[in-house]
Amino acid sequence: MRKVVYGVGISLDGYIARPDGSVDFLFMPKDYSMGPFFKRIDLAVMGRKTYEIALKMGGGSFDNQGMKCYVFSRTREAGERGGVTFTAESPGGFVRAARHKEGKDIWLMGGGELTREFLRQDLVDELYLGVVPVLVGEGIAAFPSGFPERKFALTENKTFSRGLISLKYQRVRGKRKASK
Amino acid sequence: MRKVVYGVGISLDGYIARPDGSVDFLFMPKDYSMGPFFKRIDLAVMGRKTYEIALKMGGGSFDNQGMKCYVFSRTREAGERGGVTFTAESPGGFVRAARHKEGKDIWLMGGGELTREFLRQDLVDELYLGVVPVLVGEGIAAFPSGFPERKFALTENKTFSRGLISLKYQRVRGKRKASK
Repeated sequence: MRKVVYGVGISLDGYIARPDGSVDFLFMPKDYSMGPFFKRIDLAVMGRKTYEIALKMGGGSFDNQGMKCYVFSRTREAGERGGVTFTAESPGGFVRAARHKEGKDIWLMGGGELTREFLRQDLVDELYLGVVPVLVGEGIAAFPSGFPERKFALTENKTFSRGLISLKYQRVRGKRKASK
Repeated sequence: MRKVVYGVGISLDGYIARPDGSVDFLFMPKDYSMGPFFKRIDLAVMGRKTYEIALKMGGGSFDNQGMKCYVFSRTREAGERGGVTFTAESPGGFVRAARHKEGKDIWLMGGGELTREFLRQDLVDELYLGVVPVLVGEGIAAFPSGFPERKFALTENKTFSRGLISLKYQRVRGKRKASK
């Protein structure tokens, strides 16, 4: 079944971006590649604010890198425009529908508020985090508070140059309480 | 010179405790030991709220584990009581004075607000984080927002059983901006 992977680069204090959306603190070491990740993904989803920041960073155009990109928005008219498709669907309905179709995995790119909603509805199957060795002190949280506890299992922990660590986790469902 | 080490167990979303102070989501795997860390420490510092939580968790008594423990408080009378020493000193003054004395390293145990002040005053030399594979969704932040950017270098990344990862970082000072 298609999985939802929350894949983001974060600061050591858990921010995906500075308050203005800039991500200058993130970096991609030479020995690190997103290639294997992109191969398993054919659909990306993001919140409207993340889309607007990406648009601004791209100088007014959005590069969907050949992926089908959906932008969740309650205010924008639904439909395909400028390389993305706006949708007013609920994350739960959207993911259920996507899981019923053939396809690769689904990349939850952010941002904070959409991620909170995905976690609240327990739609996130995997985490794929690149953690850079800097405390930025303020910004847009990767995991904004306001969702119930979600247990995961660590599946990969790798160290790359310049102190980037890459962590992969899988959601562990079906247990109410962890045993001591 | 004596170093200040911020050593805490945290959830994957960066909380040292739940909103009520409980830390039931943290665990200590069998193959993991705090022994080497405790050997290099002879002084622990914490905020008043963390002390009160520790006191509550300890059923009204505080176990200082043979270390000299200081509690930063603007409201409690300074002095030694019940296994700890209350101080109204500023973190900066306290650390400068401690660094001028012979001794082992200094453990910043938390909590959130004292850590923010230590980071604001750039007093933290090392981070020693044990990250458990759970998103708790809300709680007391390990790195509460409101301090300037602080760069670190990763010095250790180890994986332990049950998905605990242990990360060590050293503060990198003296650079205003990182090169691209």
